[in-house]
Amino acid sequence: MNDLNSGSTLITGGTGFAGSHLIEYLLNQQLVNPELLHTTYYSDVPDYLAHRLPAQNFHKIDLTSIQATNQLLALIQPKFIYHLAAFASVGNSFEKSRQAVLNNISLQLNLLEAIQNQVHQARLLLIGSAESYGISQPDELPIKEDHPFRPVNPYGVSKLAQEMLGYAYAQSWQLDIVRVRPFNHIGERQTADFAIPSFAKQIVAIERGHQPTLKVGNLDAIRDFTDVKDMVKAYQLLVATGISGEVYNIGSGQGKTMKEVVELLCSLSTVSIQVEVDQSKLRPLDIPVVIANNERVRQLGWQPTISLLSSLQRVLEYWRAQ
Amino acid sequence: MNDLNSGSTLITGGTGFAGSHLIEYLLNQQLVNPELLHTTYYSDVPDYLAHRLPAQNFHKIDLTSIQATNQLLALIQPKFIYHLAAFASVGNSFEKSRQAVLNNISLQLNLLEAIQNQVHQARLLLIGSAESYGISQPDELPIKEDHPFRPVNPYGVSKLAQEMLGYAYAQSWQLDIVRVRPFNHIGERQTADFAIPSFAKQIVAIERGHQPTLKVGNLDAIRDFTDVKDMVKAYQLLVATGISGEVYNIGSGQGKTMKEVVELLCSLSTVSIQVEVDQSKLRPLDIPVVIANNERVRQLGWQPTISLLSSLQRVLEYWRAQ
Repeated sequence: MNDLNSGSTLITGGTGFAGSHLIEYLLNQQLVNPELLHTTYYSDVPDYLAHRLPAQNFHKIDLTSIQATNQLLALIQPKFIYHLAAFASVGNSFEKSRQAVLNNISLQLNLLEAIQNQVHQARLLLIGSAESYGISQPDELPIKEDHPFRPVNPYGVSKLAQEMLGYAYAQSWQLDIVRVRPFNHIGERQTADFAIPSFAKQIVAIERGHQPTLKVGNLDAIRDFTDVKDMVKAYQLLVATGISGEVYNIGSGQGKTMKEVVELLCSLSTVSIQVEVDQSKLRPLDIPVVIANNERVRQLGWQPTISLLSSLQRVLEYWRAQ
Repeated sequence: MNDLNSGSTLITGGTGFAGSHLIEYLLNQQLVNPELLHTTYYSDVPDYLAHRLPAQNFHKIDLTSIQATNQLLALIQPKFIYHLAAFASVGNSFEKSRQAVLNNISLQLNLLEAIQNQVHQARLLLIGSAESYGISQPDELPIKEDHPFRPVNPYGVSKLAQEMLGYAYAQSWQLDIVRVRPFNHIGERQTADFAIPSFAKQIVAIERGHQPTLKVGNLDAIRDFTDVKDMVKAYQLLVATGISGEVYNIGSGQGKTMKEVVELLCSLSTVSIQVEVDQSKLRPLDIPVVIANNERVRQLGWQPTISLLSSLQRVLEYWRAQ
């Protein structure tokens, strides 16, 4: 197992959704000394994070610049890198396809180049996505890591390209890279571009009398939800014990219809919620079923610990506090 | 079968290596009326092509611009599109990784967006690459289209990303896309960034007394070579008869060691050639064996017709004429 205090740790995108949970987890569990923990950020450092790390460990960096990325790695000399910075919205990835694809690929490429140039021995956790699997045949479920790639949106393509760049650099330059393919994850601080927070935000608006009905997309879709707090535990575990060159699904292994999830959320509301399907929320093509086979990461000792209901409860409370 | 004169044809990169052979093939075989054949170009139109098409059918366009790409497709309204424009050098793709990856992906994305916006019914031939397969296990040879993706250089990643973007757009927006994965192809006009033309150019220099020895890279590598003239025949056949959404390997199905190829080339020289392995020509990681399973394209009636020896003879004559 890697000693996580044997060198410094860099989280790109540490002020984002998963990133902020990861920072809290690493610090709360005393897995990493705060002096050794660095993060990049894009616009602002949120208040709840600002006091958790020394001020100089927050780096405002344009990761689309190879010069800036090189300089950052030369300065920090990280031994462990969690690369979470990305254009993350699947739903927006057709409308903003250039941003999603070119941004994600450009960041990954710069980071790989900078690792090769500056910190050749560093371990990189490369974040792919279950979106790269795309459409599954019934006999391909639950989805194993060797499932074919049939992405149906630019986001899924961008994450596949990130992974494959990591694969090529690892093979050609002996970099230490562990890849993960997270399935849907939820929790506080996720933006309302995503389905669950959008539902929660609307329910709060209904509770406050600002909105009459809950507008939803395709309720037949089956998805595999993991609490973001369980997700970032897996990230840390993989940096500590993952096999170099290997790729790991991270998901609960349980499929839920979006209808079930909406019903659970509604059951947590203080008022009665009327649900309405909004055609504008339907995607050009929605993948019918996504369920993870998580055997590989389970063998390292990971398992989900937080129930869907309690995740949803927290998400709802987060939006009530906004 | 698609009637190739039922609308106009656009070739992106028609003044490049494969592109120029494709234009000549389509015109020489009278498969497309020259009035209906358009091409983009990057810097100049070579003399041997300039007289083959009406001057206004050569379009100097920056395909990295979505505006320019949209305007071009709105103007031409192509029914058939061969997208050959790309950063093509595998050997340079680590050194110039940003160019290779971002350029190829950006062009593909723009073209897909422009097709969706302007000519939704057009058929696109999307050029992937056997480089996306990367490393094969012995039981995975010859390489079928469902071989896993293990690219070892940025070029192979860029071509995979292009394909997957095509897949995602086709699935989500019902575009008519046929994908191909060409294996190595050779012929006159290929630049000396590639192995065979580099060898031929050197042999000519040796014949002229300008260079003492033939410097080569890894001679143990096994590759599958197809004449570019056979390759472009397959491209035309697939536009005419390929199955929408399908992907096709194009290669001879025959593996040759680079040593055999070098020996054949040397046997065609007028002088005795001394061969020397140049460490600087070795790649960080060279794929040991690449051989195509070409059954799928053979079922459409394609087969290679030109022997390796006569391809090499033409390549050598091309460099003698420079």
